[in-house]
Amino acid sequence: MKVTIVGATAYTSLELIKLLLRHPEAEIVHLGGRREGNPRVSEIFPSLCGLCDMRLGGLEPQDAPERPDLAFFTLPHQISQHYVPHYLEVGIRCVDFSADYRFRDPDVYRKHYGEHHDPENLQRAVYGIPELFRERLRGAELIANPGCYPTAVILALAPLVKEGLVESGGLIVDAKSGVSGRGNKLDPGSMYCRCNENVEAYQVGTHRHEPEMERALHLLGAPEPHVLFVPHLVPMDRGILATIYGRLAREASAEELQQTCEGFYAEAPFVRVLPAGVQPCTKDVMQSNYCDIAVTAVGRDMVVVTSAVDNLCRGASSQAVQSMNVAFGLDEGLGLL
Amino acid sequence: MKVTIVGATAYTSLELIKLLLRHPEAEIVHLGGRREGNPRVSEIFPSLCGLCDMRLGGLEPQDAPERPDLAFFTLPHQISQHYVPHYLEVGIRCVDFSADYRFRDPDVYRKHYGEHHDPENLQRAVYGIPELFRERLRGAELIANPGCYPTAVILALAPLVKEGLVESGGLIVDAKSGVSGRGNKLDPGSMYCRCNENVEAYQVGTHRHEPEMERALHLLGAPEPHVLFVPHLVPMDRGILATIYGRLAREASAEELQQTCEGFYAEAPFVRVLPAGVQPCTKDVMQSNYCDIAVTAVGRDMVVVTSAVDNLCRGASSQAVQSMNVAFGLDEGLGLL
Amino acid sequence: MKVTIVGATAYTSLELIKLLLRHPEAEIVHLGGRREGNPRVSEIFPSLCGLCDMRLGGLEPQDAPERPDLAFFTLPHQISQHYVPHYLEVGIRCVDFSADYRFRDPDVYRKHYGEHHDPENLQRAVYGIPELFRERLRGAELIANPGCYPTAVILALAPLVKEGLVESGGLIVDAKSGVSGRGNKLDPGSMYCRCNENVEAYQVGTHRHEPEMERALHLLGAPEPHVLFVPHLVPMDRGILATIYGRLAREASAEELQQTCEGFYAEAPFVRVLPAGVQPCTKDVMQSNYCDIAVTAVGRDMVVVTSAVDNLCRGASSQAVQSMNVAFGLDEGLGLL
Amino acid sequence: MKVTIVGATAYTSLELIKLLLRHPEAEIVHLGGRREGNPRVSEIFPSLCGLCDMRLGGLEPQDAPERPDLAFFTLPHQISQHYVPHYLEVGIRCVDFSADYRFRDPDVYRKHYGEHHDPENLQRAVYGIPELFRERLRGAELIANPGCYPTAVILALAPLVKEGLVESGGLIVDAKSGVSGRGNKLDPGSMYCRCNENVEAYQVGTHRHEPEMERALHLLGAPEPHVLFVPHLVPMDRGILATIYGRLAREASAEELQQTCEGFYAEAPFVRVLPAGVQPCTKDVMQSNYCDIAVTAVGRDMVVVTSAVDNLCRGASSQAVQSMNVAFGLDEGLGLL
Repeated sequence: MKVTIVGATAYTSLELIKLLLRHPEAEIVHLGGRREGNPRVSEIFPSLCGLCDMRLGGLEPQDAPERPDLAFFTLPHQISQHYVPHYLEVGIRCVDFSADYRFRDPDVYRKHYGEHHDPENLQRAVYGIPELFRERLRGAELIANPGCYPTAVILALAPLVKEGLVESGGLIVDAKSGVSGRGNKLDPGSMYCRCNENVEAYQVGTHRHEPEMERALHLLGAPEPHVLFVPHLVPMDRGILATIYGRLAREASAEELQQTCEGFYAEAPFVRVLPAGVQPCTKDVMQSNYCDIAVTAVGRDMVVVTSAVDNLCRGASSQAVQSMNVAFGLDEGLGLL
Repeated sequence: MKVTIVGATAYTSLELIKLLLRHPEAEIVHLGGRREGNPRVSEIFPSLCGLCDMRLGGLEPQDAPERPDLAFFTLPHQISQHYVPHYLEVGIRCVDFSADYRFRDPDVYRKHYGEHHDPENLQRAVYGIPELFRERLRGAELIANPGCYPTAVILALAPLVKEGLVESGGLIVDAKSGVSGRGNKLDPGSMYCRCNENVEAYQVGTHRHEPEMERALHLLGAPEPHVLFVPHLVPMDRGILATIYGRLAREASAEELQQTCEGFYAEAPFVRVLPAGVQPCTKDVMQSNYCDIAVTAVGRDMVVVTSAVDNLCRGASSQAVQSMNVAFGLDEGLGLL
Repeated sequence: MKVTIVGATAYTSLELIKLLLRHPEAEIVHLGGRREGNPRVSEIFPSLCGLCDMRLGGLEPQDAPERPDLAFFTLPHQISQHYVPHYLEVGIRCVDFSADYRFRDPDVYRKHYGEHHDPENLQRAVYGIPELFRERLRGAELIANPGCYPTAVILALAPLVKEGLVESGGLIVDAKSGVSGRGNKLDPGSMYCRCNENVEAYQVGTHRHEPEMERALHLLGAPEPHVLFVPHLVPMDRGILATIYGRLAREASAEELQQTCEGFYAEAPFVRVLPAGVQPCTKDVMQSNYCDIAVTAVGRDMVVVTSAVDNLCRGASSQAVQSMNVAFGLDEGLGLL
Repeated sequence: MKVTIVGATAYTSLELIKLLLRHPEAEIVHLGGRREGNPRVSEIFPSLCGLCDMRLGGLEPQDAPERPDLAFFTLPHQISQHYVPHYLEVGIRCVDFSADYRFRDPDVYRKHYGEHHDPENLQRAVYGIPELFRERLRGAELIANPGCYPTAVILALAPLVKEGLVESGGLIVDAKSGVSGRGNKLDPGSMYCRCNENVEAYQVGTHRHEPEMERALHLLGAPEPHVLFVPHLVPMDRGILATIYGRLAREASAEELQQTCEGFYAEAPFVRVLPAGVQPCTKDVMQSNYCDIAVTAVGRDMVVVTSAVDNLCRGASSQAVQSMNVAFGLDEGLGLL
């Protein structure tokens, strides 16, 4: 299977390239990226020297030397939607890392990201969490790769929401992310001496992943989900820990909560429901496609669900590869273990 | 004013010694600590070499070469209560860093820490947050220095609780602490390769600072306060960020919330209510007695209060010195700026 | 090819297990480790949950349920030598991570590590740096996997030493290592609050990797090599940067030095000689088998060679796998890219 | 004593302001800095809120509302020299943090920094290491505050150089610095995800502190000092560890080396010669004016001297205050303990 990466200078692209190089069925035929002088990708990411020294080329389908079967887009929001349709038109399947195809309703998108110029394709996009939308992903032509925070949160909440065990109308999500979550751009907020030995909240109650979480919970069956989301930056390279506070929708013992989660993910190779009393560590999922989850009953009516993912892998690149595997009928874990 | 430190090998003692060396009215006359061979404190904390090379001595009042006016206790919970009474008996004022005198009701203490052997003195102990209990601290003979998490949380919530703006019956506190919060003991959970590049929750809903927060909120006038508290460890030496989620008790605009907090702390030199839209950074309070606070209205009925303190300073040593200043009628900020 | 790991609780074992799980020709048939109750390896390293949940078993060849073709030993110095002979006797090839088989002369070993109880096998051990001793590694029955520091240093110096460009009698090696280099043991020097925000030198001129470096340089043809070695601990999980100071043995231009190194490693897939003016970053070799090298002429007669490796991969586990590949006649990079 | 800081937005200025606020004899009357809109310094450094909320003003002497007795310049190299003369002309003493007045010979300056426009004042500038040039600092009108690396290196070498114990013609200095050493500017090399979990060398043998070290060693009596200097960036906020390799000029025992250093600094309150066998930690000098030093004999003819300073304190601001104290006849340690 031949693949191209459109927008190859993001942190997530580095991970994606490494994963694809190791994937037994995928072959990178082109890397698209706008940098003056068409440098080699290994000049941008020196760790790739010797592994992948391709030069960056154009962003359009015809720029690839060979016709790809699949294109990964790691372009920013608002940019992807100008390229994706060109690929779909010529029958190349697409996995988009931006938010551009994560909402079905262009008005919701407009409110949080701006005008949408490809509303038709919104309808065919499949939200790429394989554990939850596996059937729809089979054969999918356009996959909206979820945001890093929503991935951690939706995987954590899915069992309780689907079983109606948690009130989805008043969820609180307090998430902690490593600095790579800010992306690969020069910015005072990404300076070492600002981030190191520091924790801070940002975009309190206004982060654009909040409506994405609500939309995904709705897809899972929650009638009117409401999330109060506060992300935080912590001094580490990568990893997200989401701590989710919910009210039980009905009485349920700690054992029932635990068994619900374990049962839900019994067949899922990349979601680990931890034994009762054990909390997830972001370090234990680093560089992996795992999402580790713990569920804790507190008092009579509250539940705390914690989940850990690597924001660059499960929160981006490895999940995209997992979705690709499903979409192409390959073994779901191919190249990911 | 002559002071002694009983239990001089804790991380908080190091900060306390540095603060007292710089304090214009305090003089350290003795350091009590149980280490074989009575080493110099600068052998335990090499950064003190040349600044303070006193040898550790006994823990009892008579072990000090000169009679102190005040004793700071940095002993563990359950241990302090066996020494404090000996000091009080001979008229030496006490500031205890442990939880031993933070509860009035010995049954509450017993439930979370174990048997209490000095219940009488519980009644005279003053909870040492000067901004909130200043009058009671004047002349106080026994001061219970608050826990680090409760300090951050109570200072953040006090204005809204006192004004009846937040429902104190369903508060959620998600706190992030640097690793020094674990204390100076050899423990697999404190190893560099475990803590670095990692975030994890611990003691979900069962941490002993939860009842301490509830008791302090009750002192501030909340009838039946309830807190769900989840602490987290983040990879940095020091600092706490508390993110507090509450439901508004009545309609209130963002401006009213902001002004309530600003007005409440208008005269408080060590609490900084940040301008609307600015979030506290633990780095900005590092090595200081400041508590930085931001209040954010979210939706129609929720409020998020964030606060940052240095767990070793405002969360322990510098707050103890501030309380000492008040207790002895000195300028509240003496030696702390 | 069936393999066993004897001593499966070291940090390096975790990396080794992950590498072997991904290796297309290797199959782990047994993990030997002394922990009470024979826990699963994933209880010791939770990141392995689902990937490898084998229980730890005994350390002897007969403890493996199937006869392995190869045994990796990640036991401490002085311990390996008591197990390795049992495996060799029954025809199982061995790769030892300890120093036990790194010296040919038992007296040198004794001086730095203590008595040697298996001096015969010292003679047949091959020092496992494939780029330098590839021929001897083919078919080798006992491979002494080099120390992490020596790996970084010997790969960096080999081209200049072999070409006689550097005086090997007065080398200075200043190396900086992440904290995992201290190993997985509870120790005050490995505590987060000790290591974080700190750099320090240790074992100045007395570290046991110094004689190992000298012996390897001698194998490369240096008549009387002498190294002054000072290791340092820096606050990061993994990675080694070695900065090596040498005097030129004869006049040589920067270009000649550069070309010598590039030519020497022209065919080596895992050694990257960086372009002139670019310095290696430990981050760029993290989680990889690469060794990145830069050579810089300073003044008329000095040369500075810098090299970066991941101490847990190239400095231990991935190099062991590379040696295994060579020993068994497989492609040298199998499972390592 | 009234002081002004010219160039108040550097990292070192933040430390300097904090030190001066605490200094019993100094009063900040003005802060000069070029930022649009003349913001408060506490908008640039939020940790100063409430401590110092002065607005930034002009850079010239007449911009201060009151005539200062002393001006600190924390402007970049090449800029200071355009302001310092204006202050000297009107009788205001100057402490310059840049390299502009560190060399007596304008040709040496030109070679490393560019043209010098105030060569006359070069002659009257005193190099501000109080332990070494105390007499010249008394009453000095222009003090060249040393670079951070040279401070660590010169203090470490002074005893051995002055006693003729080390060959100053072939010194090797391998230094490790925290990221604040790069300064407060937006730069890809200062991004968190670049610096964290990484060590790298930079400016190998070409850093401009090399000639500064050589000039200072010459001032101490070394006839033709030569230093090969390689700085490294390590992942921490602040601190420098210098590891210095020298050849003994004559036979000397470890004891003699130790006693030479101890004797040399016997009266120096801010230099701590550590006991034999103990290595300096950057963490132990953090936020202090201390320089910690260890001297180790290796083999028969080599010596390794290690020294630790806080680059922002002893390597910049606190050393400037120490020099100010000496220049004005105050107690050398005033405001520094």
